[in-house]
Amino acid sequence: MDSKFSKGEQSRGRLLAAAASEFAAKGFHRARVSDIVKAAGLTQASFYQYFESKEGLYQQLMDEFFAKLWELADGGSKVTALDEADVYGQVRENLLALFRFFQGRPELTQMVLYQAEAGEELHRKLAATVSANLRQNQAAGHVRADLSPEVAAEAMVAVCYRLTSRFLLAGEKTAEQLADEAVSFLAHGILQEKTREGARHE
Amino acid sequence: MDSKFSKGEQSRGRLLAAAASEFAAKGFHRARVSDIVKAAGLTQASFYQYFESKEGLYQQLMDEFFAKLWELADGGSKVTALDEADVYGQVRENLLALFRFFQGRPELTQMVLYQAEAGEELHRKLAATVSANLRQNQAAGHVRADLSPEVAAEAMVAVCYRLTSRFLLAGEKTAEQLADEAVSFLAHGILQEKTREGARHE
Repeated sequence: MDSKFSKGEQSRGRLLAAAASEFAAKGFHRARVSDIVKAAGLTQASFYQYFESKEGLYQQLMDEFFAKLWELADGGSKVTALDEADVYGQVRENLLALFRFFQGRPELTQMVLYQAEAGEELHRKLAATVSANLRQNQAAGHVRADLSPEVAAEAMVAVCYRLTSRFLLAGEKTAEQLADEAVSFLAHGILQEKTREGARHE
Repeated sequence: MDSKFSKGEQSRGRLLAAAASEFAAKGFHRARVSDIVKAAGLTQASFYQYFESKEGLYQQLMDEFFAKLWELADGGSKVTALDEADVYGQVRENLLALFRFFQGRPELTQMVLYQAEAGEELHRKLAATVSANLRQNQAAGHVRADLSPEVAAEAMVAVCYRLTSRFLLAGEKTAEQLADEAVSFLAHGILQEKTREGARHE
């Protein structure tokens, strides 16, 4: 255990992690506090020291997940003020942070991102955040001016969703491998530079 | 009606289109032949002139959909032998043909691509076809050599899935608009050329 965390923080963290597994495996309603504390190696009493109820824990789990997710989705805002030589590296860093976040909590990621009901709304909200940053970064000269920020944002979010489920949560690639491959694809697309559209008209 | 089609082909086509709507709205089991013929403006007798059963019609509908879908998914094979100046245009044509196909049969597209059960298998098979063509097109010098064809293919298929559901089936963009925006994103990514990774090391 990381010594910078107090024993209380460690216990709280273990309860949150165990609860995420239980919720993902059984659904919120069938997950029991007794199973959560057992999986965390703690007592029922310690559970109620940190959380007032199963509902309270669930809410904290979601609040923390979404707070971090929105921060990561807004990563493009870090690009705007950069020199052009640093843009590619920052985009890679943004993707790496996102994939590491998902890799560190696979069950919550699966539960939140890939559930049918609220999934569409979440995808659209994430795309709206990305779209706003793409627009800023077009103004800054980093992002190609002929892209529709709205369409490109939807496409970027779709790529992150798919690569996460197909390679990261499946355990086939690490966050680092995926960040390297995703940044290459998203930043410069699939074609050689010489095939740029403009080449047809020159 | 298009005069190049015989009356029989027209009736068969109307039954197939009506059946696609019924299957999409009610599911295969609850869709009735009587509703299909009514929606097509034809008689029960004419139905059995073209199809031996509801199952038989469903199979034909699926066979035709998938035959065309595989042909379209393999569109990258048309790129390999081209001069570099024609590559971008062909990629756009491939995307346009795909989006037109989906736009022309929104209910079947919705039913086949976005169903939970078989959806993952279909996505992987489509990505395998795209991946094989990316590899060929790397060898031909059209596709960037540093991309993983497997990851790029998954990403490309995910983008087509998402843009289709988000903009095309939602009626927010036409196949032509979407092809223009998708080819720009997929071919050359989001960043200005000057931000290429290599620029950092030069």
